Amino acid sequence: MNNFTFWSPTKFVFGRDTESLTGDLVKQFGGKKALIVYGGGSVVRSGLLDRVKKSLDDAGVAWEEMGGICPNPTDDRVYEGIGLVRAHGIDFLLAVGGGSVIDTAKGIACGVPYEGDFWDFYCGKKVVATAMPVGVVLTIPAAGSEGSGNSVITKKDGLIKLSLRTESALRPRFAVMNPELTFTLPPYQTACGIVDMMAHIFERYFSNTPGCETTDRVAEGLLTAIMGEARKVIDSPLDYEARANIMWSSTLAHNGLCGTGRVEDWASHFIEHELSAIYDVAHGAGLAVVNPAWMTYVVRTNPSKVAQFAVRVMGVVPGEKSEREIAVEGIARLKSFYRSIGMPVTLGELGIAEPDIDRLVAKLHEHKGNPIGGYVKLTPADTEQIYKLML
Amino acid sequence: MNNFTFWSPTKFVFGRDTESLTGDLVKQFGGKKALIVYGGGSVVRSGLLDRVKKSLDDAGVAWEEMGGICPNPTDDRVYEGIGLVRAHGIDFLLAVGGGSVIDTAKGIACGVPYEGDFWDFYCGKKVVATAMPVGVVLTIPAAGSEGSGNSVITKKDGLIKLSLRTESALRPRFAVMNPELTFTLPPYQTACGIVDMMAHIFERYFSNTPGCETTDRVAEGLLTAIMGEARKVIDSPLDYEARANIMWSSTLAHNGLCGTGRVEDWASHFIEHELSAIYDVAHGAGLAVVNPAWMTYVVRTNPSKVAQFAVRVMGVVPGEKSEREIAVEGIARLKSFYRSIGMPVTLGELGIAEPDIDRLVAKLHEHKGNPIGGYVKLTPADTEQIYKLML
Repeated sequence: MNNFTFWSPTKFVFGRDTESLTGDLVKQFGGKKALIVYGGGSVVRSGLLDRVKKSLDDAGVAWEEMGGICPNPTDDRVYEGIGLVRAHGIDFLLAVGGGSVIDTAKGIACGVPYEGDFWDFYCGKKVVATAMPVGVVLTIPAAGSEGSGNSVITKKDGLIKLSLRTESALRPRFAVMNPELTFTLPPYQTACGIVDMMAHIFERYFSNTPGCETTDRVAEGLLTAIMGEARKVIDSPLDYEARANIMWSSTLAHNGLCGTGRVEDWASHFIEHELSAIYDVAHGAGLAVVNPAWMTYVVRTNPSKVAQFAVRVMGVVPGEKSEREIAVEGIARLKSFYRSIGMPVTLGELGIAEPDIDRLVAKLHEHKGNPIGGYVKLTPADTEQIYKLML
Repeated sequence: MNNFTFWSPTKFVFGRDTESLTGDLVKQFGGKKALIVYGGGSVVRSGLLDRVKKSLDDAGVAWEEMGGICPNPTDDRVYEGIGLVRAHGIDFLLAVGGGSVIDTAKGIACGVPYEGDFWDFYCGKKVVATAMPVGVVLTIPAAGSEGSGNSVITKKDGLIKLSLRTESALRPRFAVMNPELTFTLPPYQTACGIVDMMAHIFERYFSNTPGCETTDRVAEGLLTAIMGEARKVIDSPLDYEARANIMWSSTLAHNGLCGTGRVEDWASHFIEHELSAIYDVAHGAGLAVVNPAWMTYVVRTNPSKVAQFAVRVMGVVPGEKSEREIAVEGIARLKSFYRSIGMPVTLGELGIAEPDIDRLVAKLHEHKGNPIGGYVKLTPADTEQIYKLML
């Protein structure tokens, strides 16, 4: 086990009707005037936005708003938000939505107190020293951004999708999490979220750092819970308990807990980021295609952890099989699971009939360097093979 | 799943040599003059106390000290600490040790800003509104106090052992956790810690609240990790990885994670507190006797969750067995495990040859009310039976 710092100071307020506490929470964390950042029409149609505004009004917190944040959020909205905050004397960012909305709010949060271009943080030129406080009312369990110090933004010019990681500066002060708000999520989007949270665990679980049994067992427990509850939410979208377990798992998958003490991987996320930046596919659906392909490739040289996953999570009985055979059986079961919740497992199923693999590989290593990954180091020759395994 | 708030803002700094960061951490959290609270000679003999003092000196943090805190810590030392803090202009409490030391520091932390008697908080007369900041350098993985908002203090007059729970006021600002500091823990004390952390999970796991699959799986994962690593640390006290996994599990067992979304129990802890208050036995050893007796009693009326534990953690194969038979087999395996790490499972083995069960039952319900517990409500008639099951 490696030395680590685990610092997840976010106050998670979880359960039915908790959005009514939003105003008090903003006040508790020092907010006097909030910028409400939100996405499409569902937050408006469902009445959630009005309930949040009422809660702010009741608590005596003033607010402005910025709606229309899209999936794979882009830098232009961050610049717009920074301008709004500076123009209106705003001291708190309230994200009402999922990962795209939260990540946009985080971009604004680090951009406002910085004199230069906020993109400097995302492309690694500068380290975030200070940021505005962010609060969250979560509507989509997937990205885990409500409990992480991370943010992913796409630069429109050149379609560069980059992620920023901070230890604590961008961790939300609070996250309001009402599972009922996810009842209306369509099955496809629900499944995308499930794949995404599982991938957040995979990126931390597939590691060569020895001696991380505690972290492994927690990760395996979460994966097992997610897969069991996933079937329930797909079959019964109004199952409160199942929605609640999925929502809470999503946070624990990405607040750092599953990475404690070890080198993480993140190659699959990087490989997927190119897919969604170039072809604008849903991140979760992209990951359903990438994860099994990545696993299939890495077990050729390093099967051990994939085999452990196969046995402990996917229920593969080892018997007389080799580690690699066990791993391969686990991957097949994972693909079946993804298919069973309506997810694609090939680029064709993802709607990318003729992928430009040369461009994907070139952009991937241009953005992320060479090699990428931790569990197996991947050069362009490797990632080309992985993209081909998705065909 | 019930509504819940999970707020674990402590910064955990984990790994080799991390005690050298103590001074910087005290400074990061605003401390200018610390009271170092510690226990017996091992902290002194090992040189840890000197290293911590040097770290404070290097960071420009002034300090005073108060040593000699004993297991089952008592109110007199809390009053002494409150006096020291007030006399010396101290603004930060630094606990260097295990649960007894941390809990004493927490007692001081809530007592200093309060005009009345700090005991008011422990006996439930007052709610902690504000407290001094506490930091921890952990040397014994057991109590989980480094990540909890709780504290247990025994009033010398009458041997009343009471626990105080706060949502966040008494959560340490940081916890420095170097597994190497636990290399010299004797096997008995190591085993006591292991039983204690498992019990912290049991108190949260044995619950009738439905729909907590995520929390269940995390709890089961931690229990599995602890039991596997426990054998290693007992056999090889210098096994860094095993010590590290035990130490980290101990924190996660008690920072609230395993209780998210459900009614907790805590009857076993209350039942044990009377044993250690009256007979001054080690808390963990007492729990090794109490936990199986409690389980044996509750499965008579409510076997389901004990059966789940038996299957998922203790490896019982259900076959054609009834839930109760499965549960009973799981309890037998748990007892074997406790015995295998040198723990007692009867009051006789604990060194209490002639327990005064009437007095234990009377004191228990005098302190904790009637009934106690959540998974099964226990009246004095029930707890008498449980104490008898320990004979």
